[in-house]
Amino acid sequence: MYRAKIEVTLRPSILDPQGKATRHALHNLGYTAVEEVRIGKLIEMHIDAATKDAAHDIAEAACRKLVANEVMENYSIVLTKMDESKV
Amino acid sequence: MYRAKIEVTLRPSILDPQGKATRHALHNLGYTAVEEVRIGKLIEMHIDAATKDAAHDIAEAACRKLVANEVMENYSIVLTKMDESKV
Repeated sequence: MYRAKIEVTLRPSILDPQGKATRHALHNLGYTAVEEVRIGKLIEMHIDAATKDAAHDIAEAACRKLVANEVMENYSIVLTKMDESKV
Repeated sequence: MYRAKIEVTLRPSILDPQGKATRHALHNLGYTAVEEVRIGKLIEMHIDAATKDAAHDIAEAACRKLVANEVMENYSIVLTKMDESKV
């Protein structure tokens, strides 16, 4: 069993209105030192696979087919083996 | 200038309907090896502060007051110094 930590971020050229609104709200609260905010998604999956490569293939397919929009977003996958005794 | 990478995740005891829907959709696509999906937020901020401690204080305040809902969510902050020449 592997834990996949997937970070989905907007490509740098894509505007991020949610991030801009957050930055604006922080400035209104007095935190004017915050100069840029960008918001992405963090997805954690538990994947039942025999090898790390197999787990990576599944996570990658999940990103391409469902989780990420490759036109607008980048994604990165980090896999760690889960301690079965704690599952 | 510091880059704060903030991960906001639902507390383990809180149900995650968005993650459950994603897991269900992945199963429908044939990826039945995916056993659990939880979805969080990934926020990147650029913070103009003199020291790492000062930047951390601002990021922490931003989380507590705006970005994270501490009743339902956990957050973690990782700060890295930005290369000014590339800003």
